[in-house]
Amino acid sequence: MANKAQVLYDFTAEPGNNELTVREGETVTITNQGVGGGWIEAQNSRGEVGLVPEDYIELPGGGGNVGHVAAPVAAHAPDLSFFDAFAAPANNTTQNQASNGKDPWSVWNQDTTGGSSNNWAAQPEGTITGKSAAPDPWGTTAQSHPQAYQGPGAEDDEWDDEWDDVKSNSESGDGGAIQRGGATGSSMKISLNKFPGFSKSGPELFLLCKQPPKGKEKITIYMGEVGPVWSYPEAQLDCVVADPKKGTKMYGLKSYIEYHVIPNTTNRPVNHRYKHFDWLYERLLDKFGSAIPIPSLPDKQVTGRFEEEFIKMRMERLQGWMTRMCRHPVVSNSDVFQLFLTYKDEKDWKTGKRKAEKDEDVGVMIFSSIEPEAPDLDPIEVEQKCDQFSRFTKAMDDGVKDLLTVGQEHWKRCTGPLPKEYQRIGKAFQNLSSVFTSSGYQGEATLTDAMTSAGKTYEEIAQMVAEQPRKDLHFLMENNNEYKGLLGCFPDTIGVHKAAIEKVKEGDRLVAASKITPQDKVTMAKRVSTMSYALQAEMNHFHSNRIYDYNRVMQLYLEEQVKFYETIAEKLKQAHSQFTTM
Amino acid sequence: MANKAQVLYDFTAEPGNNELTVREGETVTITNQGVGGGWIEAQNSRGEVGLVPEDYIELPGGGGNVGHVAAPVAAHAPDLSFFDAFAAPANNTTQNQASNGKDPWSVWNQDTTGGSSNNWAAQPEGTITGKSAAPDPWGTTAQSHPQAYQGPGAEDDEWDDEWDDVKSNSESGDGGAIQRGGATGSSMKISLNKFPGFSKSGPELFLLCKQPPKGKEKITIYMGEVGPVWSYPEAQLDCVVADPKKGTKMYGLKSYIEYHVIPNTTNRPVNHRYKHFDWLYERLLDKFGSAIPIPSLPDKQVTGRFEEEFIKMRMERLQGWMTRMCRHPVVSNSDVFQLFLTYKDEKDWKTGKRKAEKDEDVGVMIFSSIEPEAPDLDPIEVEQKCDQFSRFTKAMDDGVKDLLTVGQEHWKRCTGPLPKEYQRIGKAFQNLSSVFTSSGYQGEATLTDAMTSAGKTYEEIAQMVAEQPRKDLHFLMENNNEYKGLLGCFPDTIGVHKAAIEKVKEGDRLVAASKITPQDKVTMAKRVSTMSYALQAEMNHFHSNRIYDYNRVMQLYLEEQVKFYETIAEKLKQAHSQFTTM
Repeated sequence: MANKAQVLYDFTAEPGNNELTVREGETVTITNQGVGGGWIEAQNSRGEVGLVPEDYIELPGGGGNVGHVAAPVAAHAPDLSFFDAFAAPANNTTQNQASNGKDPWSVWNQDTTGGSSNNWAAQPEGTITGKSAAPDPWGTTAQSHPQAYQGPGAEDDEWDDEWDDVKSNSESGDGGAIQRGGATGSSMKISLNKFPGFSKSGPELFLLCKQPPKGKEKITIYMGEVGPVWSYPEAQLDCVVADPKKGTKMYGLKSYIEYHVIPNTTNRPVNHRYKHFDWLYERLLDKFGSAIPIPSLPDKQVTGRFEEEFIKMRMERLQGWMTRMCRHPVVSNSDVFQLFLTYKDEKDWKTGKRKAEKDEDVGVMIFSSIEPEAPDLDPIEVEQKCDQFSRFTKAMDDGVKDLLTVGQEHWKRCTGPLPKEYQRIGKAFQNLSSVFTSSGYQGEATLTDAMTSAGKTYEEIAQMVAEQPRKDLHFLMENNNEYKGLLGCFPDTIGVHKAAIEKVKEGDRLVAASKITPQDKVTMAKRVSTMSYALQAEMNHFHSNRIYDYNRVMQLYLEEQVKFYETIAEKLKQAHSQFTTM
Repeated sequence: MANKAQVLYDFTAEPGNNELTVREGETVTITNQGVGGGWIEAQNSRGEVGLVPEDYIELPGGGGNVGHVAAPVAAHAPDLSFFDAFAAPANNTTQNQASNGKDPWSVWNQDTTGGSSNNWAAQPEGTITGKSAAPDPWGTTAQSHPQAYQGPGAEDDEWDDEWDDVKSNSESGDGGAIQRGGATGSSMKISLNKFPGFSKSGPELFLLCKQPPKGKEKITIYMGEVGPVWSYPEAQLDCVVADPKKGTKMYGLKSYIEYHVIPNTTNRPVNHRYKHFDWLYERLLDKFGSAIPIPSLPDKQVTGRFEEEFIKMRMERLQGWMTRMCRHPVVSNSDVFQLFLTYKDEKDWKTGKRKAEKDEDVGVMIFSSIEPEAPDLDPIEVEQKCDQFSRFTKAMDDGVKDLLTVGQEHWKRCTGPLPKEYQRIGKAFQNLSSVFTSSGYQGEATLTDAMTSAGKTYEEIAQMVAEQPRKDLHFLMENNNEYKGLLGCFPDTIGVHKAAIEKVKEGDRLVAASKITPQDKVTMAKRVSTMSYALQAEMNHFHSNRIYDYNRVMQLYLEEQVKFYETIAEKLKQAHSQFTTM
């Protein structure tokens, strides 16, 4: 009984990663405590063996569990309300997927079924987030999502170590893996309080900063035909995510998938694991999230019936995410994104990685890099624009979710009862045909051959019906799912702008109370105007992409639908031709 | 309270006939006792007024109910088992239809849902019907279905009277109307015991009859390529049932529908009401039922949501029934059928009608008219053929019912959830399009116009899907429904043959027991051979018609299906063309 241990917290295994799903209170047998990397190999009562984060298990021998307190901080911190509100959809997703492992597409509806998304609900239009009476003059903290849990004792080197090679370092947790449990949501997480200088991360940081940091890169906004636009590169960056390969670490006990990422600029593949994408996402979110909605990565927990299906699905979604990032002129031009795509070697990657993590131009300070080539805007216009974008993105979010729900239903019917029915029609024709064959009557064959053939045609149609959603509805759903994720980021991004607008509105009161100077007030109005240009540029980017994406996906959908119905008609015509007119 | 009366038996109103549905035990108010024709006008507690058969009501003033005992003989006869077994499906049908008045097609499944049809179940293959130890040497009565109840004191003249004009004759019941309650089934009723000479109606009547009646019409069987065949006329008889017109009788209180029946021989329309078709059916059944399956008329109780739909449906089915009868060389050539199609005037009709009702060449005696131009058959071959036909018709009955069940399901899906789903897809596209329109972004119109158009296309497809079954599945269902009715007659027809075969097998025993002479035995073998030729001719007729019918209906179905899918593809192509490649 010495190697029995009790599970402290729920842990859901990631498919294809040699992990073991365990539930709180369950007793498991430790089969290998020396795995390292913060993992332990355990066997459950059904005889299944796999890796479990060691912090999730109460090891025998008392006090041996270093991570006991640290690991589950997300789930056991005293003030859970905010975190839970954020983490809830992700947890629900995990459960939905676990109960519906057959259908990798079920993730589409992860929170449409549960009503409106958290982000939209938590942030009513026209209000700013947070109401606590903090001692600072602003009284509010616009953006303070807790940082995703990064594992016990997570630090830069060890993350690298794990990627570079595995050391038998029992202190190091697999941040990525443990983080999954509570911190993946469909919307963006703006985690600003991670950096020392940003513990108070309201828009005032930018609105009142004395002067832009020196020598920094500028982000220019031009006045285009449609209004303010980002400066687009001459050649569109693009990349291919391909060649998933299974790698192993910890002496083969833990496996992972490594992808080739090939940018069109160098045509040279670089290797990345999912956790690297996740790292990139966190960097982009930190850096650009206040100005640009950075959609979440595809859920880690996307499951497929087969590992192959799972890998394909994840790769497809990583590709979609990367394509979207490549298409963004500001994101794609950033150092961190370029590093991810074009690092030359190990050393280059490590250096760039550390530099990116030390970047202080993050959060609202991104606006200090922006230079609109246009006069300042009227604050009323700024507010109107902001409200308009808020209404639009909310309405589109509803529309997209509606389409996802309808599509989900249709998918179910097309892969469930409908083909079964066509199959039964096909069988009924063939059955009757085989009865006819037994008649012993002369000249029966022409009819029975034709009826059998018609029956088989309906069986083929059944097959086609069942397979069709993967050929057309799939892309419509994926596109809308991507947009659902993107739209889920807008409440946060727009929230930053709304908070800034509120600050500017409070200007007179703050001057009167000597909290700020009259010059500060003028600066704030100027800066909120810059923010508005950025928002408008981003909205124009969004609209242009949206029109492109929906145009493309609708065309693809209709094209495939046309082919589908034409093929059915052709098959039936063929079946019809076998009957003779007597 | 003098004109209150209690309802004695359930009565279901026929739509469009000014009748009133009443239930046993219900109290109604007599509003007109002098209607005549065996009817009384009454009002129920909900204020609805209509005609009820007077025999179904306990009239006030005691003893005034002439029909009290006679009317419900079917429902209250002491030995109900046999009758009930026969009547059950018809009653169920009535109930099904009442509860599902929306769908006139629900009648298709009237007894497929309840399992195998009564006829097949009641008559296991290879056995003969009836097991009672009757005193006659045969010991069995092969065919003894009770005659459909014809109403109290029904007699020839009064039937005519009612048709010709209405007399205020309170003694006359409307046979047709009252009969409905219990005697319509999907299969043939061979009612032989109605005629004095046929109370014992086993096949022995023919097998042992001294000599064929003199001067009778002959039915010739030739040896064709496929075996024994009926003698077919050079020109195929056909007729059109058309122009339903509403007539009234009883001073406008009771209405009926009169159809034009126009044979292709004279091109001159004759008028017939449903009850005349019913009379014809009874005559054909009496005369030919032992040799030729005479399918039931379309159910009287077929209901439609609207009277118009009901009339259309009934007319379509009467047309189908008449076409089938016209196509039968023996039936179409008979005096009674010719009378029905071509009577010159009232007098002609009446005379012919009386003659037909006095025809003694009915039941098994029909075989005495048959002259096969071929040598006698070996009794073993006769039995083998009979068994083969029995197996085939049973198997086809199963196959047809299976197809009807599948078709019914498909019909429901095509008119229910499927179009709703396409509509929702269409709405979701249009909805998203209208959100896009609100973006305020330039150059939105091309996409939104195209998306709206695509949405409308899916709404059109929804409409098409819902309407399609009436264009194709309907005919497939009607054809199979007709065949279900026809196949339901085979157990009775084949039963006559099986009973005859059994008699012949008993030949030696009967001779030994001096029940018959050795010559009788030889005669029986010869006659059962004639019967077999008739059965084979009929089966060959059935097969040839079946191949024609299924070939035609499958072609029609597939043709319409091709059109359907092609139209959808065309519409979607159109919708697709509105998107622009950017």
